[in-house]
Amino acid sequence: MDLGSYLREKKAIVDRNLEAYFPEAEGRASDLMDAMKYSLFAGGKRLRPILCMAGAEAVGGDESRVLSVACALELIHTYSLIHDDLPLMDDDDLRRGKPTCHKVFGDAIALLAGDGLLTESFNLMTAPESTNGISPHLILRVIALISGAAGYRGMVGGQVVDIQSEGKGVDLSLVEFIHSHKTGALIAASVASGVILAGGDESQIEAISSYGRKIGLAFQISDDILDIEGDSRIMGKESGSDEQKGKITYPAVIGMGKAREIQSELVAASIEALQMFDHRAEPLRQIAHYIIERKK
Amino acid sequence: MDLGSYLREKKAIVDRNLEAYFPEAEGRASDLMDAMKYSLFAGGKRLRPILCMAGAEAVGGDESRVLSVACALELIHTYSLIHDDLPLMDDDDLRRGKPTCHKVFGDAIALLAGDGLLTESFNLMTAPESTNGISPHLILRVIALISGAAGYRGMVGGQVVDIQSEGKGVDLSLVEFIHSHKTGALIAASVASGVILAGGDESQIEAISSYGRKIGLAFQISDDILDIEGDSRIMGKESGSDEQKGKITYPAVIGMGKAREIQSELVAASIEALQMFDHRAEPLRQIAHYIIERKK
Repeated sequence: MDLGSYLREKKAIVDRNLEAYFPEAEGRASDLMDAMKYSLFAGGKRLRPILCMAGAEAVGGDESRVLSVACALELIHTYSLIHDDLPLMDDDDLRRGKPTCHKVFGDAIALLAGDGLLTESFNLMTAPESTNGISPHLILRVIALISGAAGYRGMVGGQVVDIQSEGKGVDLSLVEFIHSHKTGALIAASVASGVILAGGDESQIEAISSYGRKIGLAFQISDDILDIEGDSRIMGKESGSDEQKGKITYPAVIGMGKAREIQSELVAASIEALQMFDHRAEPLRQIAHYIIERKK
Repeated sequence: MDLGSYLREKKAIVDRNLEAYFPEAEGRASDLMDAMKYSLFAGGKRLRPILCMAGAEAVGGDESRVLSVACALELIHTYSLIHDDLPLMDDDDLRRGKPTCHKVFGDAIALLAGDGLLTESFNLMTAPESTNGISPHLILRVIALISGAAGYRGMVGGQVVDIQSEGKGVDLSLVEFIHSHKTGALIAASVASGVILAGGDESQIEAISSYGRKIGLAFQISDDILDIEGDSRIMGKESGSDEQKGKITYPAVIGMGKAREIQSELVAASIEALQMFDHRAEPLRQIAHYIIERKK
């Protein structure tokens, strides 16, 4: 298989669905809708939705059945970026080469756009058209999984520790905690959700969750490395911003060589975790490699 | 029945459940948990959870079965207050007589505490112990209802229009839009959720939703009036702050007399909407009166 075509094709499906889901902004709160859509269509890779679809595919499931949850994951990811970029958080002016949401719409609307996207993700997961033909027990399980991974035990908790550790001396266990919570948890939940909704059994769910945790951590280490070595034209933001902000990164804590080593080990272990799966897990295997080879 | 005892008893049940749900803050993200709990236990009336329980009671349901959703509603309400108070929004230093979340924990932690509470509300609604014995279809319907009411079509949308209208000339239809979205939608969803989870039929759900929309709007008009006429010692904040901020209120738009008149009409109509219910809806009837007679 050609991963490039696979990713492009899946991204197009996600984009079409997200566009269909959000109506044209009109009426009294039209700025809110504009702000939500501005960030949602600002050029994301749609990695989390694609992982959800690829998870379903790995157990022989139909991607169309997981599409609503896949799109909901992108809403959650987008909300987290909008709130992250706010002046009271990372205070970033650019994201993917474009002005951040609050630079365009103001801080208050950006905050509310994030709140709106997060809330809407749960509406999307429970809309009658999303749940059609899928056991409601499975949907409840997926909402519990995703909300757990996105909340204080996962992404939000990782953010707090990240902020509080900035500029302080940290060790490997702390940066691993931050990365696995801030980024890894939602990525792991994304791929596991696909397996759950497609009717995967418990051993399959556990194996794919293990894969997800490993690539989730590897993905954040890639972000760290790209921030130092990446091409700012490709990434759409200046390199070196993590260091400038005193951000906790793998290269800062253990050096670039060791960071790359851990990353390679994580990718190898993530593929190892997929050994019970046949060729239908090939996209997941290739995505694991892509995660450390990506340029943005 | 004595409404005062009823409200105190239900509030105690909600408080106990919220306390049991949130563990002692410990470990790396302990400030986040402290911030979430600080605002959650800052003296709220627990009106939304009580309405959810009273809704279940009105159709002969057992309040213990709706308790998780009831508590989840309080998490959503609390998140909205934390984000509202942030400097980039209303910039309030006091809430219920105590320093606001961001004054104690800083802006970033307060933002994330709000995000954490909102996300956790959906985890609470889908936790296995919440869903035990209730049809998962009904839980999905309630999540769809609540997320719709809390999101861009409801509370968040109302907030945006509220902010954008500050200091501008407005008319009655605009202030009605703001209040019914900002406050009314989640209050209506709270009472309707109780009816849905308790197995109410469609006509009961529709009648109670109508009741909820009316008292929700009346509740926000009470807030407007209390801001002008309330005792700041009882309310825990200075009176007159709405006017100072150029906030859109009923008294500002149509005058105090007319605001009170509309409020009384809403309460009468809300009780009218309950006519198909027997004595078990008595708490809801009394709550409607309480909403315009309350002192804080």
